[in-house]
Amino acid sequence: MPVVRFLPGDRLAEVPAGTLLHDAAVAAGIPDLDLPCGGQGTCGLCLVEIIGPENEAGLRLVPACQTRVRQDVTVRIPERQELAMQVVGDSHFLVSRELLPDPSRLSPLFRRVPLTVPPASLDEHYSDWLRLTRALARAGLPEPYTAGLDLLRTLAAALREQDGRVTVAVEEAEAGSRLLEVTPGHEAWRAFGLAVDIGTTTVAVQLADLTDGRVLGTATSYNLQIRRGADIISRIEYARTPERQAELRGLVLETVNGLVEELAAGAQVSRMEIRAAFLAGNTTMMHLLLGLPPQHIREAPYVPTVNPVPPLAAGDVGLEIHPDAVVRWAPGVGSYVGGDITAGLLSTDFQVTRDEVFLFMDIGTNGEIVIGNADWMIGCACSAGPAFEGSGIKCGMRAAPGAIEHLEIGETLESVTYKVIGGGMPAGICGSGLICLLGQLLLRGLVDPAGRLNMEQETDRLITAGQGRAFLLERAARTATGQDLVITEADIDNLIRTKAAIYSAGSLILQSVGLTWDRIARVYIAGGFGRYLNVADAVLIGMLPDLAPRRFRYIGNSALTGAYIALLSREHRRRLAGMASQLTYLDLSSNPQYMDSYVKAMFLPHTEVGQFPSVAQKLRGSNRPAG
Amino acid sequence: MPVVRFLPGDRLAEVPAGTLLHDAAVAAGIPDLDLPCGGQGTCGLCLVEIIGPENEAGLRLVPACQTRVRQDVTVRIPERQELAMQVVGDSHFLVSRELLPDPSRLSPLFRRVPLTVPPASLDEHYSDWLRLTRALARAGLPEPYTAGLDLLRTLAAALREQDGRVTVAVEEAEAGSRLLEVTPGHEAWRAFGLAVDIGTTTVAVQLADLTDGRVLGTATSYNLQIRRGADIISRIEYARTPERQAELRGLVLETVNGLVEELAAGAQVSRMEIRAAFLAGNTTMMHLLLGLPPQHIREAPYVPTVNPVPPLAAGDVGLEIHPDAVVRWAPGVGSYVGGDITAGLLSTDFQVTRDEVFLFMDIGTNGEIVIGNADWMIGCACSAGPAFEGSGIKCGMRAAPGAIEHLEIGETLESVTYKVIGGGMPAGICGSGLICLLGQLLLRGLVDPAGRLNMEQETDRLITAGQGRAFLLERAARTATGQDLVITEADIDNLIRTKAAIYSAGSLILQSVGLTWDRIARVYIAGGFGRYLNVADAVLIGMLPDLAPRRFRYIGNSALTGAYIALLSREHRRRLAGMASQLTYLDLSSNPQYMDSYVKAMFLPHTEVGQFPSVAQKLRGSNRPAG
Repeated sequence: MPVVRFLPGDRLAEVPAGTLLHDAAVAAGIPDLDLPCGGQGTCGLCLVEIIGPENEAGLRLVPACQTRVRQDVTVRIPERQELAMQVVGDSHFLVSRELLPDPSRLSPLFRRVPLTVPPASLDEHYSDWLRLTRALARAGLPEPYTAGLDLLRTLAAALREQDGRVTVAVEEAEAGSRLLEVTPGHEAWRAFGLAVDIGTTTVAVQLADLTDGRVLGTATSYNLQIRRGADIISRIEYARTPERQAELRGLVLETVNGLVEELAAGAQVSRMEIRAAFLAGNTTMMHLLLGLPPQHIREAPYVPTVNPVPPLAAGDVGLEIHPDAVVRWAPGVGSYVGGDITAGLLSTDFQVTRDEVFLFMDIGTNGEIVIGNADWMIGCACSAGPAFEGSGIKCGMRAAPGAIEHLEIGETLESVTYKVIGGGMPAGICGSGLICLLGQLLLRGLVDPAGRLNMEQETDRLITAGQGRAFLLERAARTATGQDLVITEADIDNLIRTKAAIYSAGSLILQSVGLTWDRIARVYIAGGFGRYLNVADAVLIGMLPDLAPRRFRYIGNSALTGAYIALLSREHRRRLAGMASQLTYLDLSSNPQYMDSYVKAMFLPHTEVGQFPSVAQKLRGSNRPAG
Repeated sequence: MPVVRFLPGDRLAEVPAGTLLHDAAVAAGIPDLDLPCGGQGTCGLCLVEIIGPENEAGLRLVPACQTRVRQDVTVRIPERQELAMQVVGDSHFLVSRELLPDPSRLSPLFRRVPLTVPPASLDEHYSDWLRLTRALARAGLPEPYTAGLDLLRTLAAALREQDGRVTVAVEEAEAGSRLLEVTPGHEAWRAFGLAVDIGTTTVAVQLADLTDGRVLGTATSYNLQIRRGADIISRIEYARTPERQAELRGLVLETVNGLVEELAAGAQVSRMEIRAAFLAGNTTMMHLLLGLPPQHIREAPYVPTVNPVPPLAAGDVGLEIHPDAVVRWAPGVGSYVGGDITAGLLSTDFQVTRDEVFLFMDIGTNGEIVIGNADWMIGCACSAGPAFEGSGIKCGMRAAPGAIEHLEIGETLESVTYKVIGGGMPAGICGSGLICLLGQLLLRGLVDPAGRLNMEQETDRLITAGQGRAFLLERAARTATGQDLVITEADIDNLIRTKAAIYSAGSLILQSVGLTWDRIARVYIAGGFGRYLNVADAVLIGMLPDLAPRRFRYIGNSALTGAYIALLSREHRRRLAGMASQLTYLDLSSNPQYMDSYVKAMFLPHTEVGQFPSVAQKLRGSNRPAG
């Protein structure tokens, strides 16, 4: 069998002739050869250099995902910039406090319930089990009750040690409650839970104290699956075989478990004390997390294997917490409106204003949009791409320390002031910074409505580099990476496509119910742009509709907030199930008007400038060249 | 530490000074040293012979359950007659056929359901899981549905292989259904279930085909726990420590698993194909089977740890069938009216005749009696003792091949004709034979109303042997054991105490609701007397009330029949739960009138002969001496 030698590192793999170079790299123990396109050969990001012997076609750079090994060969893997894997350590909610569960009335997925079980008497000689379960029913725990033998074996002694004063560990079952342990007395107890949002690009985990609902920490990182496809379609494409499904499962588990370990260590919590988890994520991510074949999601009629996901045990899922911890899932509506959206809706307050129509946008790698009120809801999904999460943008990064999250370009075009998360020198730009930057470039006439840089403007910041034309945000000497911080025309094009996908999806869904933008009383914007989103900037570039600023509400990672709420409150878990059954899915891909609407939105702010009257006025008043 | 040498077999055990000889025997690998009294030192059946050195008191025969090891000692264990461990191989029901579940409409605890799951469409793009569960709901399987990851991983492929034609393996959960496996196509399937009745003395197991309800075999044997106590109180007494609870658990599991292995081999069924079990048994037996401490059952206020028992997995229980097989339990009412009684009630047809009062008697080691109709039920328990199961009677045995089940004593007193189960020479007498024998002895004047043998009767069959006075049923040369087959005065006394306990309990319960015997329209008699019970004989000895024979119905091992019905029918499982909640428990032990009623019944047929007018008439017409 041919031997493949990989440089640098000099790793060897002996593989059958015909093996893909990428698979040989995996066999050689090189797991991090990125395949953002899922191995379709379209992104060019897995190019490797053939050192020798020369191949038939005389090529030296070949895509590892498409090139097969024929003979002994030496290959060099180019060095690439590492993904920013730092995390935002501080935690907070962007939703109003009254939406969060009342700490005095929590009903978490796992809890310990102090009870006083009355003793039996000759008149009421009910068994220990019956008296215990009656006390639980009086305490409001849902019936029926189940338990294992270990609990039954200790029950008689536990009930008699302190005159019936016991503490019962209870977890919520699909129906009813499962009793895990009965201990004598009313001791204080410790138990923790996870709220998890698994995004295509970003994974977020929150550690909560189940006794009082306190958030002990929030950690986020890129989904390690990015190496095998940047977006959902690429990742489904990659996951063709059971082996690759297992690989992708391993990668996202590595991501989640790494965050859990970090949070547990930071809060001085043993992972065995984590007894419950509530997960939200899009339908494909749930399939990949569970090792389920995802391909039917992208084949007509586009159905997932499982949605909603039935409750599972953490040990089966692969979460490295207490193996019996109950894992529950936000229910999705279809292949492209997943549990992340229903969980996100849970964190809005639209039920309070049921007479008004709301718009909910969750902008991640996919954009999902829901319009409705308390009585009806319609949702759709569009392929936004991960640009606002910092992926696919030359200097893009997640909202992590070192990210520029806000900036202004001075009227002279020379001064650029910016704000860096955590302070210090910038390492990149996060989503909110990119929206801000694009708005500023438009406002200052540095970019035209089609997204082309106006090189005639008099500033040294407009440069032509290896990647083509670009705007220089900060010089290498003043950045954390030691490289120029720029936005290229290709980046701008990417951002415009993303914002166009979002806006046109919203337009189309409104059209389908016969409404116009001005009927929207409240716009909820969720997504990983950063810690806040400047709505005026987002309206300026035509991503959000031109409505009065007071109608907008940025709710951040609403899927994570929703998962947190559902972890702690049975009432909200019921609401969540109700939302999923109430939400109707609208398929954009089969809608002929969508492409037309999308193309019209591929301008800054829009080809129909009448849809953005306030932006038109602002641009007229700015110092952009007349044109 | 002292070394104990056991003969015969020359087994050694080195044990700490102070260890009971019985525990040393267990440590030496001698498990079958019987302790019928539970180690209280009252029965003398664990006497062992001290070979040397002589002990301080100079005794050579000491009870192993009471004697402690002080120094090196050699002990001989006397040989004892082995318990009859054969089984009745044929299976049948003594209840009317229409009570048994309709084979075409079974809803067993485990089943495979053939379904055709409609494919998804662009209009109805529900997930595979949702379409599957909707099809299950249409097929009548109870919601909610749960499943493990293994099923989810194969679901998409299974649904698509044969256009949605799949077979789903489903087991009933505490609430809803657990889906275990989805396979393509509508193949024929095999799966089997167990109905189990765990009695204090006798364990009965029935193997049923879950596809059509056919009974493939029934096997019974003595509960191996008999070695550690013949009745419930002795066994609770023995089970003082966790180690002994574990030992008793091991013994009953050995009993049940032995029967299961035998049935599975006989029916050519793999034990892994046994996917469900429904168990009935008295409350103490359930505790000992599960390794639960039973002592609170016999301490005021007499409450068990668990009743009803929540569903468990076979692997946890220790049943050697499929480890995930669901094990469900007939619910009991109190410490002394257990799941065997509710299961037994399930096999009666009293709900059909709800205007009439019925009497249900289950006569095993304990006697349980229920009086009521479809609207109300009152139950009580009395310590009958295991005499009718053949235990504690010199030549008694279970209703197994070799047992005399019916007999007649000729008018000359010399000829005794009898019927042996399975034919051939007799090995002993089972319950129905004993009732018959006692009735014949009374009828022929061979025994007086107080239970004393009338040695003045002219027959060689009245003998005086080592055990005192006895009636010789068959000579050693014509028995399977090679020993004389006799009934002793001690045996007769034992039988009278048993029948008195039963009759007086029935009297008392009637008294408590202000009814008399003549109000009873139907008497159901359950118990392990044999394959049938001669009611006239049982009335003759005063065990059953003197009612018209047509009011009696012998239903055999009704607990086993009830477990079989519940194994196969969800409707009957619901009825069973309803019965348990409807049944009121009456405590005889705290009732001052019970002893009075019991003493009055300690005569043949009764001190108040007016309660048995037909018997009085029959005795007057018989050839018994005037008295």
